[in-house]
Amino acid sequence: MARIILHEANRPAVITVGDKSVYICQCGLSKNKPYCDGHHKLTAAEKDGVMYFYDGEDKQHTLPDLYPKEKA
Amino acid sequence: MARIILHEANRPAVITVGDKSVYICQCGLSKNKPYCDGHHKLTAAEKDGVMYFYDGEDKQHTLPDLYPKEKA
Repeated sequence: MARIILHEANRPAVITVGDKSVYICQCGLSKNKPYCDGHHKLTAAEKDGVMYFYDGEDKQHTLPDLYPKEKA
Repeated sequence: MARIILHEANRPAVITVGDKSVYICQCGLSKNKPYCDGHHKLTAAEKDGVMYFYDGEDKQHTLPDLYPKEKA
Protein backbone atom coordinates (compact mmCIF):
# COMPACT_ATOMS: atom_id res chain seq x y z
CA MET A 1 0.00 0.00 0.00
CA ALA A 2 1.64 3.19 -1.13
CA ARG A 3 0.66 6.43 -2.72
CA ILE A 4 2.11 9.81 -3.66
CA ILE A 5 0.52 12.89 -2.16
CA LEU A 6 0.99 16.52 -3.07
CA HIS A 7 2.20 18.65 -0.16
CA GLU A 8 2.22 22.43 -0.42
CA ALA A 9 2.63 23.39 3.24
CA ASN A 10 6.10 24.37 4.34
CA ARG A 11 5.65 24.52 8.08
CA PRO A 12 4.09 22.34 10.78
CA ALA A 13 0.59 22.52 12.18
CA VAL A 14 0.44 23.36 15.86
CA ILE A 15 -2.18 21.35 17.68
CA THR A 16 -3.03 21.88 21.29
CA VAL A 17 -4.27 18.83 23.16
CA GLY A 18 -5.29 19.50 26.72
CA ASP A 19 -2.56 21.81 28.02
CA LYS A 20 0.15 20.67 25.60
CA SER A 21 1.01 21.69 22.07
CA VAL A 22 2.45 19.37 19.47
CA TYR A 23 3.94 20.23 16.10
CA ILE A 24 2.61 18.06 13.29
CA CYS A 25 4.54 17.61 10.03
CA GLN A 26 2.76 19.12 7.05
CA CYS A 27 5.62 19.45 4.59
CA GLY A 28 5.85 15.65 4.40
CA LEU A 29 9.60 15.46 4.97
CA SER A 30 9.86 14.69 8.69
CA LYS A 31 11.62 11.49 9.69
CA ASN A 32 9.64 11.52 12.92
CA LYS A 33 6.05 11.62 11.62
CA PRO A 34 3.49 12.59 12.59
CA TYR A 35 5.70 15.08 14.42
CA CYS A 36 7.74 17.87 12.88
CA ASP A 37 11.50 17.38 13.05
CA GLY A 38 12.55 20.57 11.30
CA HIS A 39 13.05 19.06 7.85
CA HIS A 40 10.69 21.65 6.38
CA LYS A 41 13.74 23.92 6.25
CA LEU A 42 14.63 22.04 3.06
CA THR A 43 11.60 23.53 1.33
CA ALA A 44 12.98 27.05 1.62
CA ALA A 45 14.92 26.39 -1.60
CA GLU A 46 11.78 25.42 -3.55
CA LYS A 47 10.62 27.75 -6.32
CA ASP A 48 7.05 28.48 -7.31
CA GLY A 49 5.73 26.47 -10.23
CA VAL A 50 8.21 23.62 -9.81
CA MET A 51 7.34 20.17 -8.48
CA TYR A 52 9.88 18.56 -6.20
CA PHE A 53 10.61 15.34 -4.48
CA TYR A 54 13.29 14.37 -1.98
CA ASP A 55 15.26 11.15 -2.04
CA GLY A 56 16.29 9.04 0.94
CA GLU A 57 19.30 11.27 1.54
CA ASP A 58 17.20 14.45 1.62
CA LYS A 59 18.49 15.49 -1.77
CA GLN A 60 16.05 17.74 -3.57
CA HIS A 61 15.05 16.82 -7.13
CA THR A 62 12.73 18.33 -9.66
CA LEU A 63 10.75 15.75 -11.59
CA PRO A 64 12.46 16.32 -14.97
CA ASP A 65 15.95 15.85 -13.58
CA LEU A 66 15.30 12.15 -13.13
CA TYR A 67 15.53 11.70 -16.90
CA PRO A 68 18.95 12.22 -18.40
CA LYS A 69 18.69 14.49 -21.41
CA GLU A 70 21.44 12.63 -23.24
CA LYS A 71 22.56 9.05 -23.14
CA ALA A 72 26.09 8.46 -21.86
CA MET B 1 6.32 25.47 -3.16
CA ALA B 2 5.11 21.95 -3.76
CA ARG B 3 6.41 18.45 -3.50
CA ILE B 4 5.27 14.85 -3.81
CA ILE B 5 5.72 12.61 -0.80
CA LEU B 6 5.41 8.85 -0.52
CA HIS B 7 2.81 7.75 2.02
CA GLU B 8 2.60 4.12 3.09
CA ALA B 9 0.46 4.44 6.22
CA ASN B 10 -3.20 3.58 5.85
CA ARG B 11 -4.55 4.74 9.17
CA PRO B 12 -4.23 7.83 11.35
CA ALA B 13 -1.79 8.45 14.18
CA VAL B 14 -3.48 8.82 17.54
CA ILE B 15 -1.90 11.41 19.80
CA THR B 16 -3.07 11.35 23.38
CA VAL B 17 -2.23 14.01 25.92
CA GLY B 18 -3.84 13.57 29.30
CA ASP B 19 -7.42 12.54 28.64
CA LYS B 20 -7.67 13.93 25.12
CA SER B 21 -6.85 12.25 21.84
CA VAL B 22 -6.55 13.59 18.33
CA TYR B 23 -6.38 11.60 15.11
CA ILE B 24 -3.74 12.80 12.67
CA CYS B 25 -3.91 11.97 8.96
CA GLN B 26 -1.07 9.73 7.83
CA CYS B 27 -2.49 8.32 4.60
CA GLY B 28 -2.28 11.80 3.06
CA LEU B 29 -5.84 11.83 1.73
CA SER B 30 -7.72 13.77 4.39
CA LYS B 31 -9.48 16.96 3.31
CA ASN B 32 -9.23 18.21 6.88
CA LYS B 33 -5.48 17.99 7.49
CA PRO B 34 -3.74 17.63 9.80
CA TYR B 35 -6.74 15.73 11.14
CA CYS B 36 -8.06 12.42 9.89
CA ASP B 37 -11.41 12.59 8.12
CA GLY B 38 -11.80 8.90 7.28
CA HIS B 39 -10.51 9.13 3.72
CA HIS B 40 -7.97 6.40 4.48
CA LYS B 41 -10.77 3.97 3.75
CA LEU B 42 -9.94 4.58 0.08
CA THR B 43 -6.59 2.86 0.56
CA ALA B 44 -8.24 -0.47 1.36
CA ALA B 45 -8.40 -1.12 -2.39
CA GLU B 46 -4.65 -0.60 -2.87
CA LYS B 47 -2.53 -3.60 -3.82
CA ASP B 48 1.02 -4.33 -2.73
CA GLY B 49 3.69 -3.31 -5.20
CA VAL B 50 1.54 -0.72 -6.97
CA MET B 51 1.99 3.04 -6.63
CA TYR B 52 -1.17 5.11 -6.50
CA PHE B 53 -2.34 8.64 -6.52
CA TYR B 54 -5.78 10.16 -6.04
CA ASP B 55 -7.22 12.98 -8.07
CA GLY B 56 -9.33 15.87 -6.85
CA GLU B 57 -12.45 13.73 -6.98
CA ASP B 58 -10.91 10.97 -4.85
CA LYS B 59 -10.56 8.71 -7.87
CA GLN B 60 -7.76 6.21 -7.47
CA HIS B 61 -5.15 5.96 -10.23
CA THR B 62 -2.05 3.89 -10.72
CA LEU B 63 0.81 5.80 -12.27
CA PRO B 64 0.81 3.92 -15.60
CA ASP B 65 -2.85 4.55 -16.23
CA LEU B 66 -2.14 8.21 -16.89
CA TYR B 67 -0.58 7.27 -20.20
CA PRO B 68 -2.93 5.90 -22.83
CA LYS B 69 -1.48 2.76 -24.37
CA GLU B 70 -2.85 3.60 -27.80
CA LYS B 71 -3.57 6.85 -29.49
CA ALA B 72 -7.20 7.47 -30.27
